Formats: sequence, C-alpha cells, structure tokens
Amino acid sequence: MSELRKDPVTGRWVIISTDRRKRPTDFRRESVHIPPENSSCPFCPGHEHMTQHEILAHRPHGSHANTPGWDLRVVPNQFPVLRVEGNLDRHGEGLFDKMAGIGAHEVIIETPRHDQTMATMGDAAVEQVLWAFRERVRDLKNDRRFRYIIIFKNHGGAAGASLEHSHSQLIALPIVPREVKDEVDGARTHYTFKERCVFCDIIRQETDDEKRMIAETGDMVAISPYAPRFPFETWILPKRHQAHYEDASRPEYASLARLLGDILRRMNKVLQNPPYNLLIHSAPLSEPAGDFYHWHVEIIPKLTKVAGFEWATGFYLNPTSPEEAAAVLRDARG
Amino acid sequence: MSELRKDPVTGRWVIISTDRRKRPTDFRRESVHIPPENSSCPFCPGHEHMTQHEILAHRPHGSHANTPGWDLRVVPNQFPVLRVEGNLDRHGEGLFDKMAGIGAHEVIIETPRHDQTMATMGDAAVEQVLWAFRERVRDLKNDRRFRYIIIFKNHGGAAGASLEHSHSQLIALPIVPREVKDEVDGARTHYTFKERCVFCDIIRQETDDEKRMIAETGDMVAISPYAPRFPFETWILPKRHQAHYEDASRPEYASLARLLGDILRRMNKVLQNPPYNLLIHSAPLSEPAGDFYHWHVEIIPKLTKVAGFEWATGFYLNPTSPEEAAAVLRDARG
Repeated sequence: MSELRKDPVTGRWVIISTDRRKRPTDFRRESVHIPPENSSCPFCPGHEHMTQHEILAHRPHGSHANTPGWDLRVVPNQFPVLRVEGNLDRHGEGLFDKMAGIGAHEVIIETPRHDQTMATMGDAAVEQVLWAFRERVRDLKNDRRFRYIIIFKNHGGAAGASLEHSHSQLIALPIVPREVKDEVDGARTHYTFKERCVFCDIIRQETDDEKRMIAETGDMVAISPYAPRFPFETWILPKRHQAHYEDASRPEYASLARLLGDILRRMNKVLQNPPYNLLIHSAPLSEPAGDFYHWHVEIIPKLTKVAGFEWATGFYLNPTSPEEAAAVLRDARG
Repeated sequence: MSELRKDPVTGRWVIISTDRRKRPTDFRRESVHIPPENSSCPFCPGHEHMTQHEILAHRPHGSHANTPGWDLRVVPNQFPVLRVEGNLDRHGEGLFDKMAGIGAHEVIIETPRHDQTMATMGDAAVEQVLWAFRERVRDLKNDRRFRYIIIFKNHGGAAGASLEHSHSQLIALPIVPREVKDEVDGARTHYTFKERCVFCDIIRQETDDEKRMIAETGDMVAISPYAPRFPFETWILPKRHQAHYEDASRPEYASLARLLGDILRRMNKVLQNPPYNLLIHSAPLSEPAGDFYHWHVEIIPKLTKVAGFEWATGFYLNPTSPEEAAAVLRDARG
C-alpha cells in the first residue's frame, strides 16, 4: 500500500509508492567513474590558462596566482548564466516583468587531483571546500543587488556535470528562487504558530525516533527526510540553530566535512558510485530569518528518471521509503 | 546578455540564457521512433487479456468488452501508484502528516494502432482521446475523496514512457499538488487585484503582440509562454474563459484536437520527433475557481538535461527565448 506524506516545511505532498519498491541494487542506472587523468581538463594544475583569472585560491606553498601549487581554486564560470557587470534594469512589458541577467556564476575547483572526488579527497580537503563557499558568500553578499546565493554540485553526467574534475558552482541571484521562498515561507508559518524552528523540531523528532537517522558527528546529523521526493535523498543539518550557512563556526564546517565524506562513501558503496546533486540551503541574504530558518545540505542521488509531469506538477513518486533508505545507509560503511 | 523573466501566474523567475543559445538542431538528443508493431505490446488489439478489465472503451462496431474492435480503451494502470479501495486514514506522526495512498490511476490507450502517435493518428482520433479524458474526469469527480485529477502523457523513453504504444495517464489525487496550488493561488491573486483572469490577459497581450504566437484554430491559441522553463515549451489555451477542462464544449475539443496535432507535427519536424510531456492544467475539482482560473494544455519537449539543482530550487535556465521558439514553430508546417 502506498502512502501520501507531507513535508512539514514546504507542505509538499509526495507518494511513497512502496508497491513499486525497488531494492538499492535495482537503481544502478549509471555509475560515475573518474579516469586518473585527462590531458585536456581545464581544471587540472598546469592548465590554469584554460580558465579565467582566479577569484580565490588556497595556495599553502605561496605560489603565484593562476599557476600550479594550489589546493583549491575559485574561478568565474566560462559560460556564465548571469554577469556581474551592469544594472538590473527592471522593467515591465505590459503584463510581464523582467530584468537584466545580473549575477555571479563561479566555479569552485575542489582539488588539484583529477582522480579525486568529495568522497575520496579526505576530510581536510572537504573542509577547505566548505570554507571557500563561506568566503565567497561573505564577499558576494556585500553586493546589494544580490538576494540569494545558490551553492550546488552536480556529480556525474546524469546529474548535469559537464566536466568530470571535482567542482562545485555558486550562482548569486538578484531574486529569491521559488523553492527557497516556499521553504522560507513554510518555516516562517511554523514559527508563527509554534514559536519554534521547524528544522529544530525535525531534528528533535528524528533523533528520538531513530527510524530515519543515518549518522551523526559532533555538530551535525544526517537523516532521510520524512517526505523525500527522491530515493535516498539525504539531509545534513547542523544541530545548532543558525539561518545562514556562512555564519557557521569552524568546528561546524569540520563536522560537516566529516559527515559529508562519510555519507558520500556510504552512497558510493550501496548505490555503486551514483551521480548526485548536492545543494546548500541557506536563508536569503538579507532575510531577517534568524529565528525560523535553519541552513542545511541536501544530497540527491540521481537514481530514477524524473518524468516531466513530476517537475511540472511538483508531485513526486518515490519508490523507496525513507525508513528503508536510512536503514540501508546506516548499515553501510564506506 | 541573459534575461530574468517572471511568469505572471506563479511568480516563478527563469533565466533566459541567450548567451548559451542553441539552435533547434543543437538539441537533437533523442528521437522517438515507434516500430510498426511489437508482438508483446499489452496495448495492441488481441492482447486485451494483458491489461486489467476496461473501464471505458470506444467501440463503434459493437464488439464485446475486452476484445478487439475498439478505437480507444481506458484501463486501470497495471502498477498503480494509488489504489481506489480503502479509507484515506489521515493521521499524524508527531510533527508529520500522512494518509493512505488512495486515488485512481488509469491508462488511456489512444489508438489500436501500434505505429501511430498523437501527431499522426488524425484529428478525429485525437478528439476521441480528449473526449475520453472528459468522460473519465466527469465520472471520477463523483468520488468526494478526490481533490485533483492530473492528466498527462509521457512520449518517448526520455520523457518517462515505459511503453511505446501511444497512451496517456490519469491520476486522481486526494490532495492538490503543489504546483497546481501555486498556479491557482497566483491566478486568484491577479483576479483579486484586477478583477480579470490572468490567462485571459495573457491571451489578449500575446494576440496583440504576436511575437510569441505560434498558431490558432477557431477556439484555441498556441503560444510560447513569456517565462518558459524549457526550450520550446508550448501552451495551448481556449479563447473562452473556463476553469475546468471537463466543462469545455464539443467544438472546443475539436478545435484543441486540430491544434494539438498541428503543434506536435511542427515539433516533430523542427526538433526531429522529440520525446515530450503533455499536461492538462485544470482547476481543482471542488475549487470555486470559475472566475479566475483558466484551463490549458502544456507541451514540454524533453530537449535539455535538467540538473538536479533546477528541480530542487525551482530555478530554471532556458537557453532558447520564447520569441525564437515561437518563430521557429510558426514557420514550420508539419
């Protein structure tokens, strides 16, 4: 018998269609395998001329900008969807509204090693990546044109990655995207009724209940959410309430790095190196969301083919219950 | 330079990223080719025993139920995501809400001919399909447990179709899906401010403006919407204001059948038989939406790979402007 479940933040209903249940092994649609090297990779050391000038780099050896010797680089996206220069030029066209495509689109090259991924590069390197996200957000939020910064990672071609060398992307937007707005509105409504953060409530219930708990480190918990849209969708939340990702503490980034690597290794083991998307959900830049919003990370392995009607209706069928996904991931050690 | 555009109904912003513009021919990712026959197809005449008992059939020759001789059959989905029997059994689990997976999941087999598609089966056959949708909705809306009925079509494997024989699906739900709710809420807000239907306003502006008009028949218009999420996304709207699909008139279904076949043939020509999703957007069953909602059809060719972050953020990058898509489709004759 399938079940309809409601996400307590957004109010979105999903169908957990256990009649169509698949075992983890049934999903093996595409495994991501990164070759040890690729001589034409623009993100490999020695190819710095193939990217635009770096915005930020971690260079422990004091090497020069845009030369080898780095541990991590941030560069503008070669094919940006938005550009930093210009005015927003908001205007109407009769019934319609538009503005210029102003924003920032950056790439975080996470490691100099072509053969590494976030699952294998080690906790210290993942922590550097998380710290670089923070530094870029703190810099970009000085630009008052921007309302929201999306940080995300597409891993593997099926998840939308066009280059295999491990990297994340950052897009600063002059608007708040709709899903973010819905999540913020839902969290605000919960707070209005209960004077509690809905994410703090979720962490409390999941910690007591244990059915959907996957793992935890000192400052972080990883859970299968109650109403997941996708099989093995996983959320990592900081135990301490905080609205903005960039306001976390150094121990929290260290704790997140450990848990993130751990979860990705578990997924690699159970789901055979799946393609995935990783997203950081944080409050809008100037939103006074301190009390009610709670930043977190969502990891979505790309296992099922999403039919058009699902993105078009917002109505998701998920063949794996979160209780089953959590049990499988809990038992797996990467 | 790219542009941010806002959908006037839902308020969703999209990026029309013309810097990454692709010509129609650049999209050819997968063409759908249906073989003339498939001896194991459960939807072909003579294989009626491979489906469940028919709910509805158009049988002009007076043949017996579940035997050959039909023009169209409606049967329960073999692997339903929801079941008709049982109680909703709504209950909470602490913070969370759920209910039993009650609903209906039916398949409309649109033609007895394995080699036909909605683009080739002819206007009269398409009109029969549209009429069958109406009959099924009118029957199912008597069941007071249902709040919404989604009618959709996945054409081609990349669009989520698991069987190649031309068919549509209908899912009756005990809830209103989130995207539908957002669309209804947006239309209601527009009506509250302006005392006009936002879709009627769109039709008026697009008809005057012509830039995004593709084609029209007596009762219907086909346009590229102002803020499309996907390249070549196309909407067909009835010129007469009406909230519910099932309340349209016979000439309107005939007019829609003609325009739908025409648009699909134009897409086949320009985009080389693309996979696509087709959705009917109609007001929720018991919603008093008469004044402000306006039913319509959305056709979304599956040309781009949607990265996870797009469905997760509701933030869409579209490399083709609707003005360009409309011009290409306007010039094409199937």
